[in-house]
Amino acid sequence: MLTILKGNILSAPEMGKIEAIPHGYLVAEDGIIEGIYPVLPDKYASAPVEDYGDDLILQSFADLHLHAPQYPMLGMGMDLPLLDWLTTYTYPNESRFQDTDYARYVYHRLAQELVSYGTTRVCMFSSFHTDATLILMDELEKAGVTGYVGKVGMDRNGIPGMMESSTAEAISETDRWLAACHFEHIKPILTPRFTPSCTNELMAHLGKLATELHLPVQSHLSENRAEIAWVRELHPDCEQYWQTYAKYGLWNDRTVMAHCVWSDEKERQAIRDAGVTVIHCPDSNQNVSSGFAPVRQMLTEGTKVSLGSDIAGGDHLCMFDVITAAIRASKVKGMIDDWKTPFLTVKEGWYLGTSAGAAFFGEQPGFAKGNPLHAIVIRDDTLLNPRTMSLEDRLERAVYRRQKDALQAVWSAGRKILDRSTAAK
Amino acid sequence: MLTILKGNILSAPEMGKIEAIPHGYLVAEDGIIEGIYPVLPDKYASAPVEDYGDDLILQSFADLHLHAPQYPMLGMGMDLPLLDWLTTYTYPNESRFQDTDYARYVYHRLAQELVSYGTTRVCMFSSFHTDATLILMDELEKAGVTGYVGKVGMDRNGIPGMMESSTAEAISETDRWLAACHFEHIKPILTPRFTPSCTNELMAHLGKLATELHLPVQSHLSENRAEIAWVRELHPDCEQYWQTYAKYGLWNDRTVMAHCVWSDEKERQAIRDAGVTVIHCPDSNQNVSSGFAPVRQMLTEGTKVSLGSDIAGGDHLCMFDVITAAIRASKVKGMIDDWKTPFLTVKEGWYLGTSAGAAFFGEQPGFAKGNPLHAIVIRDDTLLNPRTMSLEDRLERAVYRRQKDALQAVWSAGRKILDRSTAAK
Repeated sequence: MLTILKGNILSAPEMGKIEAIPHGYLVAEDGIIEGIYPVLPDKYASAPVEDYGDDLILQSFADLHLHAPQYPMLGMGMDLPLLDWLTTYTYPNESRFQDTDYARYVYHRLAQELVSYGTTRVCMFSSFHTDATLILMDELEKAGVTGYVGKVGMDRNGIPGMMESSTAEAISETDRWLAACHFEHIKPILTPRFTPSCTNELMAHLGKLATELHLPVQSHLSENRAEIAWVRELHPDCEQYWQTYAKYGLWNDRTVMAHCVWSDEKERQAIRDAGVTVIHCPDSNQNVSSGFAPVRQMLTEGTKVSLGSDIAGGDHLCMFDVITAAIRASKVKGMIDDWKTPFLTVKEGWYLGTSAGAAFFGEQPGFAKGNPLHAIVIRDDTLLNPRTMSLEDRLERAVYRRQKDALQAVWSAGRKILDRSTAAK
Repeated sequence: MLTILKGNILSAPEMGKIEAIPHGYLVAEDGIIEGIYPVLPDKYASAPVEDYGDDLILQSFADLHLHAPQYPMLGMGMDLPLLDWLTTYTYPNESRFQDTDYARYVYHRLAQELVSYGTTRVCMFSSFHTDATLILMDELEKAGVTGYVGKVGMDRNGIPGMMESSTAEAISETDRWLAACHFEHIKPILTPRFTPSCTNELMAHLGKLATELHLPVQSHLSENRAEIAWVRELHPDCEQYWQTYAKYGLWNDRTVMAHCVWSDEKERQAIRDAGVTVIHCPDSNQNVSSGFAPVRQMLTEGTKVSLGSDIAGGDHLCMFDVITAAIRASKVKGMIDDWKTPFLTVKEGWYLGTSAGAAFFGEQPGFAKGNPLHAIVIRDDTLLNPRTMSLEDRLERAVYRRQKDALQAVWSAGRKILDRSTAAK
């Protein structure tokens, strides 16, 4: 099966670089990218072409840290300190996912909204509920989203009824969940909520599964200082937070860690050495006053970094917003440290929200040959043009204007999962 | 003429406080608010009521600093340093408003978009072009927006062709502009672009007009450090930036000054003493790396502060976004200064974007008796409810979710200027 898209093709083949092909062709065979061309190769001459005219054809987004059950509480409780926010909103809200009808209703909407924003790859936290987690995976699968979803491991330091009732249950339910995962595009990821939420026994079980089943891992790391101090109390044998994951076998190149706001040189070294991917969540870092993540520093040092909306600590599900938030946060950081760390350019922000996230799923940056086709089409012809606009100008504007209605079509793993276009022929 | 709106009425009668009347009545006579009531007074028993059911009836927004001619360049050039941004984008773009057809086209759209976001009061910069400025005022007037618009004074330190050709012309064109202002709801405001853009002679003329015609004044103050150093060079007789306005009679309680990011204790004292209103532009401060405005400090000291989108230094025209940006910026400030300055709560941010801005137009805070009716109706019944929602919860969510489509109706100075509602009867 051949897919040929025609339009202005922009991709991010490396950090800070945009490759732009005006009125070019993006060719995929059986959902796998074959190439991008300024002129359509002869061998495809008789194939049907979806012509998007002067629209922009871009890579779709990867959102590598978000909490699905927090979707209904988006934009709420933002005045509360983190712990109060967790106990007043987050845990009670998550506990409702005991109800599978509620889970179905919420997760269906979340999946639809993700697609409507052009997010096609995720690493997502569910709650601790096995059935709701399977429903979440099912809804994402049906909507065409790809990536990883994790049933949250949480068997201590929560509120009774809002976490697993025992370690034994946490372990058996994790096993039940894994046995029931049979989705094509949505795969399981082991998800200790964060070190304080998991007994050593549960951590050890998750680590065992990571090794035996070769499963990826997601969690939180060094988000704020109180959390770091707490982890140190809980694991006096660990000098640093990351070691509480490493000692259970949850620390390797299939691991994503959200935040890393306070990761010092030593922790950052451990992140690099293991090939862990850091998920920067700029909105969340400001909303819940976590601090200023050393993103530029991590990038310069060679750490893998990509972006997450972190709803509902973040209040924007749309990755256009998350990218501009990352850029603004980098300017804040630059102003604070007297520009020892240069800010993220728009092109760099774009890379972090697309290619950098896709890398966790084994893809090469940009619309590289061999990648599954993940793409969005953006129409911007109703916007005013202040001057002759280059394609790069139009990309920048698309990012900042984040006009939801501009999105015309979305492809995910080769499948067209959204089509609002009337012009395509 | 009687207007009676029924719904959940929320208003900001003082900083940090929300007055909520569930299923209450907002009554205006001839466009002037008469009162808000939990139960409709008998004397209105036979009057028609617009019933918005369970919708929220809120004060509309005041955007007290934005550059109308920069509207087409929203979200562009954000990687450039301020000076390059001005010369590459801003000045060339503003120079296009020589063309009155272009001005009509752009300003019509701007006025429509402002209304669609519920912004009904503005203090706005035009360009230096007299005719385009009159067109802008006309378009705002027609759309139903109220407030002030200023032809920009700029007769030095610009690019030839992109500023006035002489001081004499700047003066005569200002006079021509003022003579032609004949709008009911959009009034002129004297607008020296900022001190470096205006010769002393022009400043003196504007100051004379301010006194003789009792006109308000808007400009920029202490946005970044390079600018402050430049002003000091240009006015060696002035110890501080504000004095360059004050010495020409442009500094009183009818003055709004954008930014004041670097205003020290002495300058803040001068701001308070004169009753100047500071316009905080949080998005812009981060986008163009101006710094961290001492908003909490100014509020604590008793300075009048309200909000501006500052497009196109800011990239969001929607004041919901500007309010959340102000809240996030205050959290950034708090993290930097180790919480010597507490962050802005949602209720405080809401006050700054509504009542605080309305005060510059002589209004009392909230839906006070005697204020012209400025209101918006927000429908939120398609959103998920994570728990039993209080009206305050719903206000917070409306602010963070900033769902444009949620806006059902807008009133400005007593007139219904937008109606998307189908349910109202």
